[in-house]
Amino acid sequence: MENNTVKVGLVGFGTIGGGVADILLNKKEEIRRKTGKAIELVKICDKDTASDRGVQIPDGILTDDLSEIINSPLDIVIELIGGLEPARTFVLNFLKAGKDVVTANKALVANHGPELFDEARRLGRTIAFEASVCGGIPILSSIASSLQANTIKSIDAICNGTSNFILSQMEGKGADYDGAVKEAQRLGYAEANPSMDVDGTDAVQKLTIMAQLAFGVKTDWKSIPRTGIDIVKSLDIRFARKLGKRIRLLATAKRVSGGVELKVSPTLVPETSPLAKVCDAFNAVQIIGDFVGPVFYQGLGAGRKPTASAVCSDVIDTALGRTRITFDALNLWGPGRESVPAVDPNQTSETAYLRLKVEDHPGVLAKTTGILGQHGVSISSLLQEADDDSSGANLIILTHEAPSGSLAAAIEEINSSSFVLEKTVKMSVRD
Amino acid sequence: MENNTVKVGLVGFGTIGGGVADILLNKKEEIRRKTGKAIELVKICDKDTASDRGVQIPDGILTDDLSEIINSPLDIVIELIGGLEPARTFVLNFLKAGKDVVTANKALVANHGPELFDEARRLGRTIAFEASVCGGIPILSSIASSLQANTIKSIDAICNGTSNFILSQMEGKGADYDGAVKEAQRLGYAEANPSMDVDGTDAVQKLTIMAQLAFGVKTDWKSIPRTGIDIVKSLDIRFARKLGKRIRLLATAKRVSGGVELKVSPTLVPETSPLAKVCDAFNAVQIIGDFVGPVFYQGLGAGRKPTASAVCSDVIDTALGRTRITFDALNLWGPGRESVPAVDPNQTSETAYLRLKVEDHPGVLAKTTGILGQHGVSISSLLQEADDDSSGANLIILTHEAPSGSLAAAIEEINSSSFVLEKTVKMSVRD
Repeated sequence: MENNTVKVGLVGFGTIGGGVADILLNKKEEIRRKTGKAIELVKICDKDTASDRGVQIPDGILTDDLSEIINSPLDIVIELIGGLEPARTFVLNFLKAGKDVVTANKALVANHGPELFDEARRLGRTIAFEASVCGGIPILSSIASSLQANTIKSIDAICNGTSNFILSQMEGKGADYDGAVKEAQRLGYAEANPSMDVDGTDAVQKLTIMAQLAFGVKTDWKSIPRTGIDIVKSLDIRFARKLGKRIRLLATAKRVSGGVELKVSPTLVPETSPLAKVCDAFNAVQIIGDFVGPVFYQGLGAGRKPTASAVCSDVIDTALGRTRITFDALNLWGPGRESVPAVDPNQTSETAYLRLKVEDHPGVLAKTTGILGQHGVSISSLLQEADDDSSGANLIILTHEAPSGSLAAAIEEINSSSFVLEKTVKMSVRD
Repeated sequence: MENNTVKVGLVGFGTIGGGVADILLNKKEEIRRKTGKAIELVKICDKDTASDRGVQIPDGILTDDLSEIINSPLDIVIELIGGLEPARTFVLNFLKAGKDVVTANKALVANHGPELFDEARRLGRTIAFEASVCGGIPILSSIASSLQANTIKSIDAICNGTSNFILSQMEGKGADYDGAVKEAQRLGYAEANPSMDVDGTDAVQKLTIMAQLAFGVKTDWKSIPRTGIDIVKSLDIRFARKLGKRIRLLATAKRVSGGVELKVSPTLVPETSPLAKVCDAFNAVQIIGDFVGPVFYQGLGAGRKPTASAVCSDVIDTALGRTRITFDALNLWGPGRESVPAVDPNQTSETAYLRLKVEDHPGVLAKTTGILGQHGVSISSLLQEADDDSSGANLIILTHEAPSGSLAAAIEEINSSSFVLEKTVKMSVRD
């Protein structure tokens, strides 16, 4: 990339690919004026070469033959096909063919980060991936560079827009969970099968990436405690409100004694917190650094244009050489990189919101509180109401801070009791 | 800076200087682990070599002799003395002596940016200045890099923490302006003479810097329309609330036909806007890009630790070479850089909040609305109440959007009318 024209290929010409092509083709002059670099999109590869992507592309650049990407003298290849395979193999092949890579694929980075970054280092190439977490919010560059003088104390992220939209619908419109999911699907905020969003998988993969950047944590995302919003009911929203809280799906990394605590859970946050005010499909991240204090970011976490903005910023950074410096300095998943361990989830402590469905007769309350007490879990408040749909009762318990292991043991014992009608639901609570 | 140790000097060892020394001395190992660079603070220069700055410094590094900075083989010098002179001369001398410069001095950059950046370019040096705007919020690097694929449509910044603290006090505690200023002084949020903060000078200088970065606007900050919070009274806070608004000091840059509109003014923002929720000494910036949409940042804009965080991030970026790339790409105030003109303030349009102090007798209302009507300014709402402290009445007028020139002419005619007891106050209004 010694000369002033940087040649770029794009693999995966879907919604986001269309946005990326829109920027690179239609803002080429503006980008050159702003950065001094001419960045030229010369090849686009997709199986589908027929559909309209809402962007006019020059003749001859769209192909369904991946070898045209591999064999062209491209400086940078953008991977936007998503998923694990063939994305992983493709990216390895791009690196081997001497191309720097830009990707928006959080699953790929969360699952194969160590392998891909090692291979890029070995081959003298770079990988940039700002768009893989929180779309338009420049959160990875903030952690990697702007806040680099800080020891990061914690990260709280609302990083799944689908979940936040569904919670907003339940909160604002009083919709029940299924109705909110349908509305999200109707408006394009949720896929036909939204399970990766609503079960917390998407959020936990993004958390894994942020935790590697901020703390060097090397961990399998599957080992991180994860609860999705698919357990949230209208009555939880209502009870949270009574407690002066809102429910948000938080992905959290918190420095504690001995390591970093990682968790994804629907969380009751105080209604005065900036996180409580994040509505609809917005994403937000609050980072606390030892010097900078709290820094809060909010923006659109997904969608064609915000994601394309992040992808193209990475393309420009790679073209200018900023990515090279960051890539070398961070040494992600690399040997010698500082690595704070993820702490054992059972060795942490938490304040919990518990919802039990129990038989509605005298003695149940005493038995429940008895079990919690035996496990050393003390209760800060308790609400009970008859369930509309059954003969049982809903019991809402807010605990004081308690060891997570004790809480888990207490919940297990409660769930195995004969008076309990459904599996107990647990969410996190913030003061 | 070919080898792995970068030598740094610090000039100005006050509150922020103490924070910077704290990071560079006490986090040296952490920074080396995180970035691969050893950054060594080897000289600190200040007239006062006796006072305790709350940080332990090694023997022999503190001096009151500036020539020790100029003549030492330093790679980077941090300028933290503030103000225009001798800071300007010092920075020019650092550049001439072959040092890259990091500064937190917004007045210096806003007033002497063109000269300093030209000189740095001529000498092959760099200047970094993230800490000069919004302290701990990485707003300059966001504009310069993270959002670089966007055409920026607007920037709205709460960038003066003193003003925001005073408005918060008036809003939350019902304090009057003078009482709120005294409380801000007592808590260290306002200086003994807070005029540069409360008259909007500080905010407009920061706006000038953001406008150069985002739009290439070259403009003298003194030519930008500027109203400070020193015109805000408790009754404005109260009336704003009746209208569902909060008053915030906004520094605004907005792309309009023919250029960029720049302004600093107390502004009535909807209480549901994220800007309305920024309280106390926090800073916040909302940027709208054509692709990324709205991105919102909030953090501490001043103070020892947040400012030191930004300064040290710039030091690390300079040591790693990221500043060099950004400096060359942006070509700030440079020849050939795209430069959108600032539009003539009288050629813009705005929705205004007007507060008139008028004689309390029949006919005044008709005369006032008559003058506005003659100038083509139409009224959306009007409130009148007797003034507690005088025989006059306070008249609050909310206009529809009107040409700024017409508004100014109408206000001038109102002010020269015999029934008007005080100069009319104007604030901006956002829907």
